Amino acid sequence: MLAPRPAYNDLVIFNDILRLRTEEPLQFIDLTAWVDRVVRRSGVGHGQVQVQVLHTTAAIVANENEPLLIDDFKRLLERVAPADENYAHDDFERRRVNLTPDERPNGHAHARALLLGAAKLFNVIEGRVELGRWQTIFLVEFDGPRKRTLSATVTGRRRNSA
Amino acid sequence: MLAPRPAYNDLVIFNDILRLRTEEPLQFIDLTAWVDRVVRRSGVGHGQVQVQVLHTTAAIVANENEPLLIDDFKRLLERVAPADENYAHDDFERRRVNLTPDERPNGHAHARALLLGAAKLFNVIEGRVELGRWQTIFLVEFDGPRKRTLSATVTGRRRNSA
Amino acid sequence: MLAPRPAYNDLVIFNDILRLRTEEPLQFIDLTAWVDRVVRRSGVGHGQVQVQVLHTTAAIVANENEPLLIDDFKRLLERVAPADENYAHDDFERRRVNLTPDERPNGHAHARALLLGAAKLFNVIEGRVELGRWQTIFLVEFDGPRKRTLSATVTGRRRNSA
Repeated sequence: MLAPRPAYNDLVIFNDILRLRTEEPLQFIDLTAWVDRVVRRSGVGHGQVQVQVLHTTAAIVANENEPLLIDDFKRLLERVAPADENYAHDDFERRRVNLTPDERPNGHAHARALLLGAAKLFNVIEGRVELGRWQTIFLVEFDGPRKRTLSATVTGRRRNSA
Repeated sequence: MLAPRPAYNDLVIFNDILRLRTEEPLQFIDLTAWVDRVVRRSGVGHGQVQVQVLHTTAAIVANENEPLLIDDFKRLLERVAPADENYAHDDFERRRVNLTPDERPNGHAHARALLLGAAKLFNVIEGRVELGRWQTIFLVEFDGPRKRTLSATVTGRRRNSA
Repeated sequence: MLAPRPAYNDLVIFNDILRLRTEEPLQFIDLTAWVDRVVRRSGVGHGQVQVQVLHTTAAIVANENEPLLIDDFKRLLERVAPADENYAHDDFERRRVNLTPDERPNGHAHARALLLGAAKLFNVIEGRVELGRWQTIFLVEFDGPRKRTLSATVTGRRRNSA
């Protein structure tokens, strides 16, 4: 008698890393195609995908990919957390910790990242990341150009499993 | 000899859709009863529930359901992303993409949605969504009245499973 | 003949509660060591950990633990949602609901919590919470000192399972 196919084959945890170089100080980069590819490669039918940036001066968001709106978002961020505000974090004379050789003034970039958040989770339905008609997944760069690392984890049930 | 009950019965991924029509331009709609019902129907004992709105001018948040506080939140959003600001997204002469027949000026609504986020995840404990005494789950409408679609996914272990 | 090891052993859902007392009205408290401990105790290899505060005047965020930057964050929050703004929530003459014996004016604290969010999810990789070099997980207290309760749920596949 054959034992049933081991059921741990039904739970999928699949992780992928993306490394890229941003090009502008403040930039919205469309990640949707990458996230969708990771979800398809994971083999998950229904579940969730977490998109996380491993930095403190960048964010993950979902909104509409319309160039004039992206300009509006940049103005919003500049109003809420202006680049020319005085940030104590940028006073390298007073800083005691976390100073790196390539340190640059980026207090505004941390402030913006605090507001928008380093990660977002999305439902996965029938093997696809679930997004509304206008929803696009963006990496938001607040302190570019820089090398950035992103990590996406898909969790769920294997497609076509019982 | 009987093989053990297939273990894929222990992993639960359960999705539900809610369609509703909002009634005001800026409105907080209590979703807690719906989320709790989805969690109970899922059969999950311990896990998580993701509540996601499939639009770019609405958000999911958790805070207190007190009418005067909701008024405060509306004033906060109006201060941070004013409706009468000039949004390039609303300059339909310049727009090249994503113009629909029923387009209306809603740059402020996108800005507010960017700040609050389209989804939130909550722990599920003993078959209930885990919320503190004052925590209520809200859909926030920034560009109503509109038809809206929400998607909730519960993931976790089946209640009473080993 | 031995049946295969029941596969529900591979799916892990592990929850832990942390109770603490905050000490200042506005305070950033480093939770990273606790979250890492919960992840290790869970036995999960790959998966995710959700960190949730069960209150409406506190938040969970991830950013850099640098004292001058924390001061910048406090100034940002004071600019965006000032403590001396008039909040209708704090007008106890008008309030009809949710009034407690120890009620204190905290409209600004709710506003800040709305913006930063009550929970954050992080990837778990090889048995550790996945964080970039500068990423620290913080509880942010907006209305301290207070007793606070946090709930963390780790979901994923048991370490060393097939």
